[in-house]
Amino acid sequence: MTDEMTPYCHHFHRAVVAVTRRWSPEIIRAMLAGTTRFSDLSSRIPGLSDRVLSERLKDLEAEGIVVRTVHPDTPVRVEYTLSEKGADLASAVIAIAAWADRWITQEEAEASTR
Amino acid sequence: MTDEMTPYCHHFHRAVVAVTRRWSPEIIRAMLAGTTRFSDLSSRIPGLSDRVLSERLKDLEAEGIVVRTVHPDTPVRVEYTLSEKGADLASAVIAIAAWADRWITQEEAEASTR
Repeated sequence: MTDEMTPYCHHFHRAVVAVTRRWSPEIIRAMLAGTTRFSDLSSRIPGLSDRVLSERLKDLEAEGIVVRTVHPDTPVRVEYTLSEKGADLASAVIAIAAWADRWITQEEAEASTR
Repeated sequence: MTDEMTPYCHHFHRAVVAVTRRWSPEIIRAMLAGTTRFSDLSSRIPGLSDRVLSERLKDLEAEGIVVRTVHPDTPVRVEYTLSEKGADLASAVIAIAAWADRWITQEEAEASTR
């Protein structure tokens, strides 16, 4: 497929804009692994502030990737899940995770902050 | 593999930092499709300025993803190619391109600028 790939594609560009904002890939991965609560996303992703997490969840909801569900319990319980469109990012996340396993060194991983 | 995926992985985070800076995925795609000259990258990726292209090529070179080769012709000819590490991103780029084909509408693609 690489041989057939065009140098540029508007659909690809739009997809990149939708899913690569800072921390979005990490949030999508955590949700693919089953994390659904704001507080769990916040505690499981080191370095991600609540403010940015809140912004990204709104971005991803606007992109149709994340669904926000409010359960009318007492207290109200809010759950974030991936839509069909969001869950379909699994193969892309798996491809990047596999690349990371092959190429990112332990030293790079340990030093990673941005 | 989704079931086995951990919510967070430092290697994955470091990979995301390395490859998702603004315009990096589009540059990597164009290079996977065989584009090797600065001027060709610049003209084939709409909306990408020469200044940002130059910065991203330096970033990607520092990450070991892009190799810069200077051919001692007259005038000097500079070529940018993917390293083995960079070329190994093909499966991730293909996965995102396939997702884009499935989920990005024609209207979104045509309206895309950032």
